[in-house]
Amino acid sequence: MSRRRRIYEGKAKVLYEGPEPGTLIQHFKDDATAFNAKKHQVIEGKGVLNNRISEYLFQHLNDIGVPTHFIRRLNMREQLIREVEIVPLEVVVRNVAAGSLSQRLGIEEGTQLPRSIIEFYYKNDQLNDPMVSEEHITAFGWATPQEIDDIMALAIRVNDFLTGLFLGIGIRLVDFKMECGRLFENEMMRIIVADEISPDSCRLWDIKSNEKLDKDRFRRDLGGLLEAYTEVAKRLGILMENERPQGSGPVLVKS
Amino acid sequence: MSRRRRIYEGKAKVLYEGPEPGTLIQHFKDDATAFNAKKHQVIEGKGVLNNRISEYLFQHLNDIGVPTHFIRRLNMREQLIREVEIVPLEVVVRNVAAGSLSQRLGIEEGTQLPRSIIEFYYKNDQLNDPMVSEEHITAFGWATPQEIDDIMALAIRVNDFLTGLFLGIGIRLVDFKMECGRLFENEMMRIIVADEISPDSCRLWDIKSNEKLDKDRFRRDLGGLLEAYTEVAKRLGILMENERPQGSGPVLVKS
Repeated sequence: MSRRRRIYEGKAKVLYEGPEPGTLIQHFKDDATAFNAKKHQVIEGKGVLNNRISEYLFQHLNDIGVPTHFIRRLNMREQLIREVEIVPLEVVVRNVAAGSLSQRLGIEEGTQLPRSIIEFYYKNDQLNDPMVSEEHITAFGWATPQEIDDIMALAIRVNDFLTGLFLGIGIRLVDFKMECGRLFENEMMRIIVADEISPDSCRLWDIKSNEKLDKDRFRRDLGGLLEAYTEVAKRLGILMENERPQGSGPVLVKS
Repeated sequence: MSRRRRIYEGKAKVLYEGPEPGTLIQHFKDDATAFNAKKHQVIEGKGVLNNRISEYLFQHLNDIGVPTHFIRRLNMREQLIREVEIVPLEVVVRNVAAGSLSQRLGIEEGTQLPRSIIEFYYKNDQLNDPMVSEEHITAFGWATPQEIDDIMALAIRVNDFLTGLFLGIGIRLVDFKMECGRLFENEMMRIIVADEISPDSCRLWDIKSNEKLDKDRFRRDLGGLLEAYTEVAKRLGILMENERPQGSGPVLVKS
């Protein structure tokens, strides 16, 4: 295996030192976790699919001028990214009520929200990622008011783009989670989108059938997670129509 | 008993129709509740003390130009108030970590916060008053962005005044909850402070001993709730030094 220096290992990804200063290698594992890793399973091939789907989404975000940490995909499980200082917040954008919002506010899952809602969760496994407001974020110095504004502006752009993209392939973007980082470059700092965007971090419902094509299949024991992620990849034009994902990873169409 | 029309009965107070249009009578009960009324006890004399303490605080807020619903105290348990449309938010201002903030964010109780933090909770017993952010409040129309700004400005003024007042009597204002309402007057609408401010809705710690002089004595089964509230009233100069509260209510000094 690799002798590269491991910078960080999370629940579904590993970060290694990159080939040049200011870069890292982001490796996608097959681990599926939920409820703060109380539930865990290895789903062979998931990492390959998420690497490819996240590459597709981040590359297109870069193309429309939404800055991300993504540089290029290296292989089936790895991508080269810019090193950033991660803002310790999970930024959740919701278009339709589901999951914790439905439970906390008593709104039936599937209800269209009056407008998109941006939520912040403090990234801290020990505390189960508690929801926080701008008041907490600025009081504890996790981000400045200007950074929160920048993050919200990025979140809205990402939501607009993804909503349109998924709509185009018959999928409703119910909600998604993103993370941001501080990129230090030319003595300047700016906020960019980091981490990943994949069916692990989105709620994606088929528009006609309302079938879930995301990690809720794992969270709620619905089965067929790999098939669902493969369906998303196929609709995005990443996988050949007739290919099936294998443990070694699905055959990919050259982009 | 009274034949007045009951407008609303809450856990610790009853609202009756007032003598003139646009007024209500706010009646303080002796009920102590916690954890969304899962814990309940009647503590004889509490309502009398809260009526008097809340009168004192609201009257002084009115005097410094912080608009409140308070008009005047009517008797031992009742006060005349302006009728407002309650904004369905509990506004919590925190100066020192305690209670749910300590638990949710893993900050030791008693830690001075880097700055005062304003939190909003959606008033809904069925949902256990979930914490919400400006995003939820504006998306669901519970208050407008302008109203949130007005509420926060009022909250800061109330916090400044109360912090100073309690400091002056050897008490640390750890946090407090307030509610706001919309007052419609002369074809104008403005946000004013409503409900009550009392040891039921504040955390008050003796500066020297850190002894709790608030409802945490009930929540945490520390005993001596009535004695603690009496101590607060005495330090505010409301009760005679030698008076002890009775079931029928403590003897009050004329203001």
